[in-house]
Amino acid sequence: MIHEKVTSREALAKQDAADTLAAIRQHFYLPDGVIYLDGNSLGPLPWRTHLRLAAVLGGEWGDGLIRAWQSAGWLALPQRIGDKIARLIGAQPGEVIVADSTSINLFKVLCAALTMRPGRRVIVTERDNFPTDLYIAQGLVEFLGGAHQLRIVEREAIAEAIDEDVAVLMLTHVCYRTGEMHDMAALTAQAHARGALTIWDLAHSAGAVPLDLTGAQADFAVGCGYKYLNGGPGAPAFLFVARRHQADFQQPLKGWMGHAQPFAFEATYQPADGIARALCGTPPILALTALECGVDIALEASMDEVRAKSLALTDLFIALVDDLCAGYGLRLLTPRDHHRRGSQVSYAHPHAAAVMQALAARGVIGDFRPPDILRFGFAPLYVRYVDVWDAAHALADVLRERSLGPTA
Amino acid sequence: MIHEKVTSREALAKQDAADTLAAIRQHFYLPDGVIYLDGNSLGPLPWRTHLRLAAVLGGEWGDGLIRAWQSAGWLALPQRIGDKIARLIGAQPGEVIVADSTSINLFKVLCAALTMRPGRRVIVTERDNFPTDLYIAQGLVEFLGGAHQLRIVEREAIAEAIDEDVAVLMLTHVCYRTGEMHDMAALTAQAHARGALTIWDLAHSAGAVPLDLTGAQADFAVGCGYKYLNGGPGAPAFLFVARRHQADFQQPLKGWMGHAQPFAFEATYQPADGIARALCGTPPILALTALECGVDIALEASMDEVRAKSLALTDLFIALVDDLCAGYGLRLLTPRDHHRRGSQVSYAHPHAAAVMQALAARGVIGDFRPPDILRFGFAPLYVRYVDVWDAAHALADVLRERSLGPTA
Repeated sequence: MIHEKVTSREALAKQDAADTLAAIRQHFYLPDGVIYLDGNSLGPLPWRTHLRLAAVLGGEWGDGLIRAWQSAGWLALPQRIGDKIARLIGAQPGEVIVADSTSINLFKVLCAALTMRPGRRVIVTERDNFPTDLYIAQGLVEFLGGAHQLRIVEREAIAEAIDEDVAVLMLTHVCYRTGEMHDMAALTAQAHARGALTIWDLAHSAGAVPLDLTGAQADFAVGCGYKYLNGGPGAPAFLFVARRHQADFQQPLKGWMGHAQPFAFEATYQPADGIARALCGTPPILALTALECGVDIALEASMDEVRAKSLALTDLFIALVDDLCAGYGLRLLTPRDHHRRGSQVSYAHPHAAAVMQALAARGVIGDFRPPDILRFGFAPLYVRYVDVWDAAHALADVLRERSLGPTA
Repeated sequence: MIHEKVTSREALAKQDAADTLAAIRQHFYLPDGVIYLDGNSLGPLPWRTHLRLAAVLGGEWGDGLIRAWQSAGWLALPQRIGDKIARLIGAQPGEVIVADSTSINLFKVLCAALTMRPGRRVIVTERDNFPTDLYIAQGLVEFLGGAHQLRIVEREAIAEAIDEDVAVLMLTHVCYRTGEMHDMAALTAQAHARGALTIWDLAHSAGAVPLDLTGAQADFAVGCGYKYLNGGPGAPAFLFVARRHQADFQQPLKGWMGHAQPFAFEATYQPADGIARALCGTPPILALTALECGVDIALEASMDEVRAKSLALTDLFIALVDDLCAGYGLRLLTPRDHHRRGSQVSYAHPHAAAVMQALAARGVIGDFRPPDILRFGFAPLYVRYVDVWDAAHALADVLRERSLGPTA
């Protein structure tokens, strides 16, 4: 364990100097005076994004105009970037495509899953799933007129909730609040054993933890471009459809870019072969350009190194907070068990919102999540060991000052 | 009629010099050697888009990181730009929002319309509607299990197709193939008289022809950001919901940005008041930034001047082609009647694809649309009268050479 060796900030600085991922940090613009522990909300700006967007604006859109759809390869972008993301999540070429938002993509795969299990009427998910995932499922169930049911259970009750009525198990792989990680392979196997399909939301996983969608026999997945993939605010999202399901993949958002021949302008929809049928409207080229810059950087790192550093950073933070902040009312929500931890550390605290605000005033940026959660994301591509030291000390200072101050 | 005065290119150059919209052309980068008559597929790059995107990258995303959602006003962008677009289409503040793609937005308003007319099962549209509009309606009807029907009729039969079973009339205001424009107020009144709602696709209208959604009592509308609004390739789209319908507006794509309190992270969806409930996922900030640049330029022009110049440009092109290209097999598809014409001119020709290719080789860029259509868009914000002269002469040259050549 890293933290057992830690006696000083200097020791951690040496560890940063020896870090094989240190060079990748140089790809990002990270403002002075900021320790950024919120890359799980919005990743930072890669330097190259500026240059690449300028090139696309001037050389492609500007000079190419409508011709750039062909000459600059714009039409190929959703699948090209999808194939790159596939390498990050353990999927195969042709199984991932970039399109729309995570919410919209979740709607698509939910519709597809229900269509593939016509005799079953239940979607199972957990209470701690990200709200928009719950809303999308609620919206779909309501729209279908009430014959379907969204079964929301506690984390511990997921496996037993999958009965013969369940069409699909829909889970977020790493919980946005606690950072707890599901065992994708085990839960997928349990769902399959009962005849259900699975949908994995990889918003807090892709680019941060090793994933093996092929090995887990995952059916469908969706994920976010603007968190650990550093694709920019509101970046396009991705979706995964296992190749074995692609011929049966049907969903109601049938737009022209999912047509077998978009430029034949036929009056009747014919789905494209393969993952392209999951496209709907015209691809957003500027946003895709920015996303590809972030994805390209993530591909430079070995996911094993990323995972090792992620665990080292989160272990270190937990150990330092154990030492420095004992007695100030923090309650660790993130598992100490490596196998159940994503790339963030969360604590409950009765004054979480005020504590996070005080941290931000010191340049330590994390997130407050209602009702009482302090959330710190540790993106291994750019967070340093010294950042963890400084953040933990800043947290201790804030808590100490609160306990001494008049409003504590 | 402008063309009656035209005797020479020099006369047209004088007309350009006197054009009150000429200054607006300076806002766009238009490459040398290109006459761009395809702004109805993809508008050109505004200079300011480059600068503004660089500022958002560096000053907002780069320096602000997650904080920019508040500090840079990102969360307000969909409605801020929507309010600007409302001014271009004759809608009221709070009735338009920018989100997703035209196809996705069409799905939303179709679902809302069907929900508001529960006893009615038919969607009426026309055969010549843009294919993705037909596909979205087909996808929805199929997904609803077959109780609904998409009634596709010829243009002449639209009014009589609206019977007591019709929930919604869904039309594109200006036809993408022919440039023919519907009478929005008259058709909306006919639909309302029979108890049906209306959806107008403004893809080929917004920014090009005067629109009065309020005056027409339109119910719902969608539109495109990357054509006459010059928002960039795959720019976000917009949707309009008349204020009187907003409280009843329900659709299944219930994402967190349409929630009354997105950052309360509640487990149950509660729609936001007003047009914000039409949002779904996280807004795409880079793409929204580019779109706002284009919309701001469109707002600098008076729509009356835009319309007058649009008709003058299209009249001129038709007159020149009448004179120069007689006998080469062109058949005008666009109405000569001003009241039925959008901002494009289309011809059928047996070798349309080859003719358009030959024009492109001369720097005149229009579109080929299957099976046999030459399509020329005349965006009044940057197309000049001399461009029309040059394009018509290039077309005549191409047709003459084809008729003399071995493969004519």
